[in-house]
Amino acid sequence: MKAAIYQGPGAVEIHDVPDATLSRPTDAVVRVVRACVCGSDLWGYRGVLPNKPSGSRLGHEFIGVVEEVGAEVREVKVGDLVVAPFQWCDNTCETCRDGIQTSCPNTGTFGAAGADGGQGEAVRVPFADGTCVVVPGGMAACDEATLASLLALTDVAATGLHGAVLSGVERGDEVVVIGDGAVGLNAVLGASAVLGAERVVLVSTHDDRAALGREFGATDIVPARGDEGVEAVAALLGRKPKHVVEAVGNPDAWDMAIAMLRPGGTVGSVGVPHVRPELPLFPVLRGNLTVRAGLAPARHYLPDLLQRVLAGGYDPGRVFDLTLPFGEVAEAYRAMDERRSIKTMLAF
Amino acid sequence: MKAAIYQGPGAVEIHDVPDATLSRPTDAVVRVVRACVCGSDLWGYRGVLPNKPSGSRLGHEFIGVVEEVGAEVREVKVGDLVVAPFQWCDNTCETCRDGIQTSCPNTGTFGAAGADGGQGEAVRVPFADGTCVVVPGGMAACDEATLASLLALTDVAATGLHGAVLSGVERGDEVVVIGDGAVGLNAVLGASAVLGAERVVLVSTHDDRAALGREFGATDIVPARGDEGVEAVAALLGRKPKHVVEAVGNPDAWDMAIAMLRPGGTVGSVGVPHVRPELPLFPVLRGNLTVRAGLAPARHYLPDLLQRVLAGGYDPGRVFDLTLPFGEVAEAYRAMDERRSIKTMLAF
Repeated sequence: MKAAIYQGPGAVEIHDVPDATLSRPTDAVVRVVRACVCGSDLWGYRGVLPNKPSGSRLGHEFIGVVEEVGAEVREVKVGDLVVAPFQWCDNTCETCRDGIQTSCPNTGTFGAAGADGGQGEAVRVPFADGTCVVVPGGMAACDEATLASLLALTDVAATGLHGAVLSGVERGDEVVVIGDGAVGLNAVLGASAVLGAERVVLVSTHDDRAALGREFGATDIVPARGDEGVEAVAALLGRKPKHVVEAVGNPDAWDMAIAMLRPGGTVGSVGVPHVRPELPLFPVLRGNLTVRAGLAPARHYLPDLLQRVLAGGYDPGRVFDLTLPFGEVAEAYRAMDERRSIKTMLAF
Repeated sequence: MKAAIYQGPGAVEIHDVPDATLSRPTDAVVRVVRACVCGSDLWGYRGVLPNKPSGSRLGHEFIGVVEEVGAEVREVKVGDLVVAPFQWCDNTCETCRDGIQTSCPNTGTFGAAGADGGQGEAVRVPFADGTCVVVPGGMAACDEATLASLLALTDVAATGLHGAVLSGVERGDEVVVIGDGAVGLNAVLGASAVLGAERVVLVSTHDDRAALGREFGATDIVPARGDEGVEAVAALLGRKPKHVVEAVGNPDAWDMAIAMLRPGGTVGSVGVPHVRPELPLFPVLRGNLTVRAGLAPARHYLPDLLQRVLAGGYDPGRVFDLTLPFGEVAEAYRAMDERRSIKTMLAF
């Protein structure tokens, strides 16, 4: 089979690799239907994470059709269309039952060393019954837009929602989202459509992303960063906000989030803090702030979000503004790296 | 009047200073009855905070009798015995109404530049109506133990309780407290007596402090630090805990707290992180942890805690294991610095 392989900074190629096969009785093999490139894939692509070895598999987001199941797989059937979160899990241990499937003792990430990546023709899915969520009706029930939204559930829709959940925003509340990438936009959508926030302020300096943000439920756009953005948000709301989502991960976004919060406020962070992996504590202590950060337990959110997608009116897949055939995966990386695309889908 | 004055590392002396006087119509002047030395006073005493100028006033914990009130003071009367939190506040602004009085725009800390310190014969109390809580019955209603417990409310009792509150522990829960100083012990007492935790594990390597911890409600003592302590706690509870109070502030305590938590758990920190004022973010992100830190809004807790002290059975003042006359304030610092005393009270 063919799979995207990391060659080094800026270089992704499709190579022949061994076919995905069952290795344990709880595995399934899934033939990929749609996959995509994640903002976090760009860290490796840009060489910011120099620990990614040349020759690595790529991609942790995919949906597909089950091709083969192991002897102990009970729920997932051959022919099912399934959505897999970016990390697999057993979904039976106490940590999974707590809804933190990303910390399951049996977890791992697709595309990491030893695992098949989503950016390939097929994937061995460990703990298939725990990991996969079956789409009722299968491929026949899905148009292109539905496939896109199902694909979004594997990571960005769940991650954006998770940021909003971590921020503590609830029905009727105000929340500010810092970051207008696919995750930030999905934080807006999650806060608005899923959690029922009444006022959702998106910090965005890109008109096209802000426009999608408005369609996703942003009631206000603040096109300013840093101190200027902090002041603009407080002026807009009449007071510093209580709930902020940090959906970037870089120091500017973190500093903005902390400075923006009112005393006693909460930041929910789902950005990956590669650039400055430490948080200054004194501002947190002085402000009695709550800091919550986490890899999104997408599996926890998947059943509900899947129902929302199929019911209509919840369309996280709209963040895909470019679709390319899998053969053009290199161009997909370039388009996202050069910010020509918010998020690029790969069709197989 | 006389007040304790910081002379430089290791040196505290009593000097004559200008009498405390009303400076604004919302002020009161309070004649100090009992004061004490705080663990955080030792940071300056040891020269760890080299920004404390020689000649500074000292002390932020005191109770006393009102001697004079400004024209706009309505609630507090001359002759009242009052408890003041370690920071004053107006207690009327929206931040105070939110219960975060330590972030009041009108706040300040007793003993800081420009303010009278608690370790002196009298104190000008700004925003007296907002700051002071009147003790019903006054001095006549208080024996020595009651005075000690009222004094504890000004900081350590509220700070310990705040740590427990920040950790998210509720009635019937398990919680682990890291730190057996006066604040950690009061976190045990707060978790147990105020919040109703069912199981309170105190990490303590000092037998005398552990003994008081047990009397304050600790159900278990873990006399081990670092990885050994982390493993001992998990073995004791059968699982990593969901709620941890960090009541030290140094890197070892922070690292232990973060390593100890189960995925999705919460650390409530009230230690002051002078030694390493940054928190590594990746463990927080990986574990979906909640980090809450804060200067305790003692004023928020004071009315309830005052009632508990007067009702009996809640005795945070038991952390005072040494009482000295104010004239021996230098010995009070030495006793705490050399860990001969958990917390030392000064009688006037």
